[in-house]
Amino acid sequence: MKNLKVAYLLDFYGNLFADKQRDILEMYYQEDMSLAEIASSVGITRQGVYDNIKRGEKEILSMESKLMLMDRFLEISDSINKIEEVLKEKKIDDKEIFSELESIRSKI
Amino acid sequence: MKNLKVAYLLDFYGNLFADKQRDILEMYYQEDMSLAEIASSVGITRQGVYDNIKRGEKEILSMESKLMLMDRFLEISDSINKIEEVLKEKKIDDKEIFSELESIRSKI
Repeated sequence: MKNLKVAYLLDFYGNLFADKQRDILEMYYQEDMSLAEIASSVGITRQGVYDNIKRGEKEILSMESKLMLMDRFLEISDSINKIEEVLKEKKIDDKEIFSELESIRSKI
Repeated sequence: MKNLKVAYLLDFYGNLFADKQRDILEMYYQEDMSLAEIASSVGITRQGVYDNIKRGEKEILSMESKLMLMDRFLEISDSINKIEEVLKEKKIDDKEIFSELESIRSKI
């Protein structure tokens, strides 16, 4: 079973992996390739791909337990949405505020 | 020379280190202890402390180059400050907005 959380976490922590390992994780989790397809694309055994994925999952879940980037992303997104709702309700149409909120959204 | 940036980065990435290594980095960068004092406190040689610090600096700067948590923190803080300024200028005194901005600040 693929752990869907890992697919999301790759967006946050993918940069921490060596290129080849990141490629393998992305092919598996984001491009939905089979172990055999990845093995043939990367030029290692199917078992090698499997081991890489298992090791990567463990690392990425451990990173999230320590840095909580995804958790914080979700909470901050939620706060931005709430602020935008209040601004709309109160018909406060300030371009600078909305553009700074977008800027925050792009950086979390 | 102590790298001041490392002292700040410890707040972002300290959790990624094993307890003992984090202790050593914090004693050196945040509590301003000497190598000899740290060595005696941790029970390893002065050279061991020095090696730990050098390795830690390298790791923490590499993490920041990949995840840019401090960079993003500074940019998001800046956006929050700008939004608060506009709200004050326009005399928009909405408790929910300010509390959500504080909540974002506490999570970045």
